[in-house]
Amino acid sequence: MDDDGIETDAWAADEGPGPGAPIPASAAWRVGDHPGRRQFVTIGDLPLESDPLGVLPDAVMAYETWGELNAAKDNAVYIAHALTGDSHVFGPSEPGHHTGGWWNAMVGPGKPIDPARHYIVSANVIGGCQGSTGPASAHPDDGQPWGSRFPYVTMRDMVNAEIAVTDHLGIDRWRLIAGPSMGGMRALEWTVMAPERTGAIAPVGSTAATTADQIAWSTSQIAAILADPRYRAGDYYDAADGDGPHIGIGIARMIAHTTYRSAGELNDRFDRNYQGDSDPLGKGGLFSVQSYLEHHARKLARRFDANTYVALARAIQSHDVGRGRGGVETALARYTDPALVIAIDSDRLYPMQNSQRIDAALSGSQGIKVVHSPVGHDGFLVEAAQMIAFMEEFERTL
Amino acid sequence: MDDDGIETDAWAADEGPGPGAPIPASAAWRVGDHPGRRQFVTIGDLPLESDPLGVLPDAVMAYETWGELNAAKDNAVYIAHALTGDSHVFGPSEPGHHTGGWWNAMVGPGKPIDPARHYIVSANVIGGCQGSTGPASAHPDDGQPWGSRFPYVTMRDMVNAEIAVTDHLGIDRWRLIAGPSMGGMRALEWTVMAPERTGAIAPVGSTAATTADQIAWSTSQIAAILADPRYRAGDYYDAADGDGPHIGIGIARMIAHTTYRSAGELNDRFDRNYQGDSDPLGKGGLFSVQSYLEHHARKLARRFDANTYVALARAIQSHDVGRGRGGVETALARYTDPALVIAIDSDRLYPMQNSQRIDAALSGSQGIKVVHSPVGHDGFLVEAAQMIAFMEEFERTL
Repeated sequence: MDDDGIETDAWAADEGPGPGAPIPASAAWRVGDHPGRRQFVTIGDLPLESDPLGVLPDAVMAYETWGELNAAKDNAVYIAHALTGDSHVFGPSEPGHHTGGWWNAMVGPGKPIDPARHYIVSANVIGGCQGSTGPASAHPDDGQPWGSRFPYVTMRDMVNAEIAVTDHLGIDRWRLIAGPSMGGMRALEWTVMAPERTGAIAPVGSTAATTADQIAWSTSQIAAILADPRYRAGDYYDAADGDGPHIGIGIARMIAHTTYRSAGELNDRFDRNYQGDSDPLGKGGLFSVQSYLEHHARKLARRFDANTYVALARAIQSHDVGRGRGGVETALARYTDPALVIAIDSDRLYPMQNSQRIDAALSGSQGIKVVHSPVGHDGFLVEAAQMIAFMEEFERTL
Repeated sequence: MDDDGIETDAWAADEGPGPGAPIPASAAWRVGDHPGRRQFVTIGDLPLESDPLGVLPDAVMAYETWGELNAAKDNAVYIAHALTGDSHVFGPSEPGHHTGGWWNAMVGPGKPIDPARHYIVSANVIGGCQGSTGPASAHPDDGQPWGSRFPYVTMRDMVNAEIAVTDHLGIDRWRLIAGPSMGGMRALEWTVMAPERTGAIAPVGSTAATTADQIAWSTSQIAAILADPRYRAGDYYDAADGDGPHIGIGIARMIAHTTYRSAGELNDRFDRNYQGDSDPLGKGGLFSVQSYLEHHARKLARRFDANTYVALARAIQSHDVGRGRGGVETALARYTDPALVIAIDSDRLYPMQNSQRIDAALSGSQGIKVVHSPVGHDGFLVEAAQMIAFMEEFERTL
């Protein structure tokens, strides 16, 4: 991981098709692909909160584990991934995993979440594209990808699937459920949906209910994907390499990535510099920040699935831990176990106030912990030392 | 004008094709269309700063005027429009003008800029789509739209064209050049390119050089237009109604509009409300803020030209009043006449620091004036009372 967050600027040979190769229509993991470290469990028909389909039939969850569950069964930690993350929290990129662990800074030997002490679990979310049932999965009726037929899923649907994984693994109660951004949203849902199984939570740079501003940012991102003619209304899985909706997902990523970084960091890092020697003014060159965004656009297109992006962006829009529960504060007030609420001071997508609201609503919160960073939302990946210090201190109290 | 800024939510019958009609491929004003209040001047071959073409041949400027130039020729005020504005600063929507005056709050009888006292001029920029030579104009070689052949233009090219209009009107020196956002960028260029003709400036919510963050926001907007297959690389003028790049320009507008509004204003105004009775969660409904953005997307597509959007967004990216002049501070230090620098405190696109830099660099600045507003960048349109007070006070000192 470099200071770009999840992805490195250099292309690793084992990350899948490189810059010279056509981008596949979907970079989703498919049955028959190398499983990597994934394990799978069939969780059956998953009830859906809002979709008219009612259930997602024959749902499968892909997950990874590190370490061992101890005899007391009190060392299990669940890591909940963000929008473009997956179960590969920790480790190198390797066959079956396009990218190295997205939270290597927090999870691993000598880290606050350590496989020598913890039984660490992370599952790809329902709707995801790295092994759990999602739009690229085979529909049980015809074996073809769900594509445009894939239902509307919510955070609560995702958590129900995570609860099924928990049952499968024989875990009564998580010592800790930690996650950044969309992962924090699910950690909060756990406190309401299964408080007795949630020993503690650590939502990072997250929110109890997405705001109009956050819904707005997702709106243009979703629109950019739907507008790509190669998206084909979601049924693009048969398209040849290079003929998928990579431009649409790339534009979505450009918008999102700009929100993930603070204005100050972009300005300090890129200023008005040109990329290479080429003059952007009428001469076909690019500003450095343009090149940076285009790089991240292409890179996400090579490792992610457009339908999953749309499904999860909609789930983020729908996220409101207080929906049907008397509001955020009422819903969160019932949970009294410890909570570590971390905010990044320069986060313009999930600003401090969102974390302050969570902190105020959770009686077990240790008080909001602020990561001081120029970077913005991606500070949860970049500011390893501060994150580690907060998590280590919290973990010792559990 | 309502609190959305330039555009009203209700569709006016005289604004052009309404919501039920197909969106034309380009909403550019074309020769043969009703001229409205436009006057035209041919300014000849316009030198281009950066495009390999070298000149824009046979350039025409469309402009409007209000009031009369007095005998002393010291009452001329130039209003410089922003990205999606045009020469129609003041007045109702009427035949030839899809929208009412975009700065009716500041310009008009009893307003700080008053046709009873001032000779008010505003021209559509080079590259624009409301009468001045732009991508929709006829290429002199073949009479077909410039389209993809239209050159790369910069703020300096636009100001050279404005200087030509100034010559044509027999104005030696502007009493004041005022403009918001991209209009403020040109006001700053005037102080360097023709300081002796620039009596005073009033840049509002603007910047002396666009930042990496501002370049980043334009990058995804431009990409959204270029990605629209109906954009046809810029040669879409022959396309039938409904077959133009209206989705691309709409997505660009969604991104831009979100940056024009503060997060707080969007959250206070829309919260997580649904549009109408329809549930957005899996039931095909929309959140209110989504509906709001889609409305603005469709509306801009009906009144603007996609190539112009790209050309001006690139000109904004290229904007640096210090380029080739020893930097911003050196370039602006030479200008000593009065300047009114206005910032909106909640502006997240052109934040306060941008105006503070202008204020510090201009020795004639009256000190930065801050519009207190929850709205964000669009505060220059919305906060009429504060804007009027600042401008009235400043105008009296000239």
